Amino acid sequence: MLSRYLPILEWGRRYDGSTATSDLVAAVIVTIMLIPQSLAYALLAGLPPVVGLYASILPLVAYAIFGTSRTLAVGPVAVISLMTASAAGAVAAQGTTQYLEAAITLAALSGVILAVLGFLRMGFLANLLSHPVISGFITASGILIATSQIKHILGISAGGDNWPDMLGALAGAIGDTNVWTLAIGIPATAFLFWVRKGMKPALIALGLKARAADITSKAGPVIAVALTILAAIVFDLGAKGVNLVGEIPAGLPPFAMPSTDLTLIEQLWVPALLISIIGFVESVSVAQTLAAKRRQRIVPDQELIGLGASNIASAFSGGYPVTGGFARSVVNFDAGAQTPAAGAFTAVGIALASLFLTPLLYSLPIATLAATIIVAVLSLVDLKTPRELWAYSKGDFTAHIATIGITLLAGVEMGVIAGVSVGLLLYLWRASRPHAAIVGRVPETEHFRNVDRHNVFTVPHVLSIRIDESLTYLNARWLEEYVLERVAEKPELRHVILMASAVNEIDASGLESLEAINHRLRDGGIGLHFSEVKGPVMDRLKRIHFLDELNGKVFLSQSRAFAELAKDDGLQSDPPDDFPRGMI
Amino acid sequence: MLSRYLPILEWGRRYDGSTATSDLVAAVIVTIMLIPQSLAYALLAGLPPVVGLYASILPLVAYAIFGTSRTLAVGPVAVISLMTASAAGAVAAQGTTQYLEAAITLAALSGVILAVLGFLRMGFLANLLSHPVISGFITASGILIATSQIKHILGISAGGDNWPDMLGALAGAIGDTNVWTLAIGIPATAFLFWVRKGMKPALIALGLKARAADITSKAGPVIAVALTILAAIVFDLGAKGVNLVGEIPAGLPPFAMPSTDLTLIEQLWVPALLISIIGFVESVSVAQTLAAKRRQRIVPDQELIGLGASNIASAFSGGYPVTGGFARSVVNFDAGAQTPAAGAFTAVGIALASLFLTPLLYSLPIATLAATIIVAVLSLVDLKTPRELWAYSKGDFTAHIATIGITLLAGVEMGVIAGVSVGLLLYLWRASRPHAAIVGRVPETEHFRNVDRHNVFTVPHVLSIRIDESLTYLNARWLEEYVLERVAEKPELRHVILMASAVNEIDASGLESLEAINHRLRDGGIGLHFSEVKGPVMDRLKRIHFLDELNGKVFLSQSRAFAELAKDDGLQSDPPDDFPRGMI
Repeated sequence: MLSRYLPILEWGRRYDGSTATSDLVAAVIVTIMLIPQSLAYALLAGLPPVVGLYASILPLVAYAIFGTSRTLAVGPVAVISLMTASAAGAVAAQGTTQYLEAAITLAALSGVILAVLGFLRMGFLANLLSHPVISGFITASGILIATSQIKHILGISAGGDNWPDMLGALAGAIGDTNVWTLAIGIPATAFLFWVRKGMKPALIALGLKARAADITSKAGPVIAVALTILAAIVFDLGAKGVNLVGEIPAGLPPFAMPSTDLTLIEQLWVPALLISIIGFVESVSVAQTLAAKRRQRIVPDQELIGLGASNIASAFSGGYPVTGGFARSVVNFDAGAQTPAAGAFTAVGIALASLFLTPLLYSLPIATLAATIIVAVLSLVDLKTPRELWAYSKGDFTAHIATIGITLLAGVEMGVIAGVSVGLLLYLWRASRPHAAIVGRVPETEHFRNVDRHNVFTVPHVLSIRIDESLTYLNARWLEEYVLERVAEKPELRHVILMASAVNEIDASGLESLEAINHRLRDGGIGLHFSEVKGPVMDRLKRIHFLDELNGKVFLSQSRAFAELAKDDGLQSDPPDDFPRGMI
Repeated sequence: MLSRYLPILEWGRRYDGSTATSDLVAAVIVTIMLIPQSLAYALLAGLPPVVGLYASILPLVAYAIFGTSRTLAVGPVAVISLMTASAAGAVAAQGTTQYLEAAITLAALSGVILAVLGFLRMGFLANLLSHPVISGFITASGILIATSQIKHILGISAGGDNWPDMLGALAGAIGDTNVWTLAIGIPATAFLFWVRKGMKPALIALGLKARAADITSKAGPVIAVALTILAAIVFDLGAKGVNLVGEIPAGLPPFAMPSTDLTLIEQLWVPALLISIIGFVESVSVAQTLAAKRRQRIVPDQELIGLGASNIASAFSGGYPVTGGFARSVVNFDAGAQTPAAGAFTAVGIALASLFLTPLLYSLPIATLAATIIVAVLSLVDLKTPRELWAYSKGDFTAHIATIGITLLAGVEMGVIAGVSVGLLLYLWRASRPHAAIVGRVPETEHFRNVDRHNVFTVPHVLSIRIDESLTYLNARWLEEYVLERVAEKPELRHVILMASAVNEIDASGLESLEAINHRLRDGGIGLHFSEVKGPVMDRLKRIHFLDELNGKVFLSQSRAFAELAKDDGLQSDPPDDFPRGMI
């Protein structure tokens, strides 16, 4: 029981020296990768760079204790940083104490929401984000993030929460471009693109093994950081108008308190919920992919608790919302991490960096961090998915494009809400008009198939309807209309058989519709019968009076139902008084 | 085409004298019933009584032109009046011009929402209100409405939007009870109860035919109105502190303009949407019930347009939101109405009343109207449904009780929203974990049944899973977990067959999960096969590359799939290189 909520008790018991060595190696590589990333993502979130380091220490320790993935690497990620900037920017101006407080409070709220959803086992809510909605949201976020960083490459000031505003602000300020900043930003971006695409082949050509080349190329951003710091010092770029990171207070994360101001919480809980769900969905899909590769398992409801604990830890150590990141988790996995202890070791690495390395970062140009972000997020933009969705499903395509469009035009929060709403509306629309077919017997078999698709045997006084869906409130009204319309088309009709082989559930609204159908058919002298009702459905129907009032029978198989009722050839004008009722 | 949007063109062409006579008779009876009702419901909505008359003239004409039910009687109804009071009360104080303007604007917004939903054919949205939610809402509204009228019976002032507040206010003011008001209110209530329960048997005992007795007893409220007016005049009750209706401006409805103030519209659109949907659902279920009795049909999407036109007509003639009422429609039907012209004739009757009868109503005690309301709405309270739901479905019971509880405690709007949300959450929760079964062959047949319920034949290297649900984004994650867990339990496994007889759709998220399953099973040297895939599902899968990449086959029937794969007895350790792919 305890180890369900504390997975560390499970893997910690078998922890040994060789596992520790693997975890340590992975931790060193992830630390090197994470330092520039955390600074950059804090910048993207509109926060002081050091906040990115704070968000990469205690949250990793918390996840190591509560998380179920062996290899997930938690910390600040691009999309969540963008959402944080949008939510905190709505309540305070960047650079103010209120803005930082809002970011910390977002982490705390998000942590509480995640943990509560985990304890209530509400992980299924993440299902509301379909693949097309998620991928549309990620694509649009990638475009928004990359656009938001162009100003740092140009060395200008430009704002905007949505794409048209951002582009307009950039166009308006482009005249102020600082050429020295550009001289750092363009080469840094080009270099990082090469690191991503060309460095690994080049290293292999130089004789490195594929895996070593792969991991070494992850240190590319660190090279860019080092080189541009050097350039900034040598050419005294700070005096030439190039924005530098500047003083970063060295030291461990401070103890911070999220705000308990109810007005602020009221403003932030919806964005916090969206951050939680987007973060959870992204993190779980990364964790599941990696776990499957080693035939391990993750527990989604416990992942909610793990990520919740991470975010609460982030809030109390002056950080902002975090989640499992894709790129760093893959690096962690590839570098051989065996247990969540690798995350704890990474935390130690980042803590050492924030104690001792921060003075070195004084001359780091902001443009370098912007280049890191741009190169990282452009891989989020996925132009293949819309084409595939168009070919496969127009409904899914619509949800995807709506999510992209509204995210770009109205910002990240409206984008997620619109995507979920469009997906849900399309689902409910389809669920409200499910598939059903009039069936007949395939000659010389006991099979019954759709009369429109197969050459089958029917009789005019018996109508067999196969319903290919559970009967729930979403389609209860449809059911009444469908059955009564089919009946109205057939004047000789004496018996209707509902073939319920695909009906897994009948809820109270579905039952009420069946009662209405039974009632109306009886008024018209028509019997209502059922065939192939599943065991659990039948068990529930027996608990109430429906079967007593049914003007017909329940048959075990459709072929028996059809054989018996087809014999009733309509020579009697009314069903006999002793018409049998109930289960056969 | 035109007659689809204007049903009057359909029935109007065949209109003749005998139909007109039937319609006229029904109209007279409904008019007599509607006069006290419209005054009372306007009172309930917090509006001057005459507004109830205005809302019972043009809306009926509009419905006669655009509506598809032959017998639905439109006008102010209790639940919608309560919702109007709640929404208008949130933006202005009762008795002010702003309050009346808010009510008129609600009618206009509701009319536009209904008409737009109708043109977009979005009637399916009404499905979101399940039977348990609707019946819970109606029960709670009945309790709220009856409670809100007690003050008029006692002759005291008391407010409150929810039940605890109302009861508190009543308890606080009960000392101010006016005995003369009580002397009108209690007998009026008792008389009206008797009219409802005892008058029809009494009239039959006096020799009237059942139908005549039934219709005559509908005039009971008019008798109460006449007697209490007489009492008020004879005993000069106005001077003794009994609230009377007072001056009602005689005349036809004025031309009114809904507000175009965007702030007001922003405040009112959510309540207007809820009023629209509740009104539509109630109206359609009444219309469907009556139509089925005469084997007629209604068209739900056109009903949206009909009710939309009614509400717009109500707004422009100084009325408030209207919908099809249950009691008056039944009376209309029983009195022999044949076409919507009966509604138009009723409108003429009400117009005559508002021209000539209003002076007579000067001395009508408010307590009489309150008694009318109390007796009418107590029939809305349904104590049988919760017990039936408890027996049949705990989920539906939860939605029902949540709706009642939150409506009573937090008011009508929160009640509807909570009911819909709870219903949807429970639905999504169930949809996220659908039914699936491991199946085996029933000996000496070609049938495959659940291994847990039947004695069936299986082999250890073939796993047949029957999925009893469409594969959509709501259950895509479940599908991956379910299949991979089952596979992990069986080390000798070489083939997985997904029996898709109940899969009516695979959306993009479901497809992505199938791809992930295919990929992971292939990594483990296990084939993934499908059987009994439905035609439309197969057509769509063929449009993309899934079948090319499938590490297995698609079989027409489960029995062929099992027969072929069971022969592959695992002597080879890997699937052969020429492993056949694609459709057989």
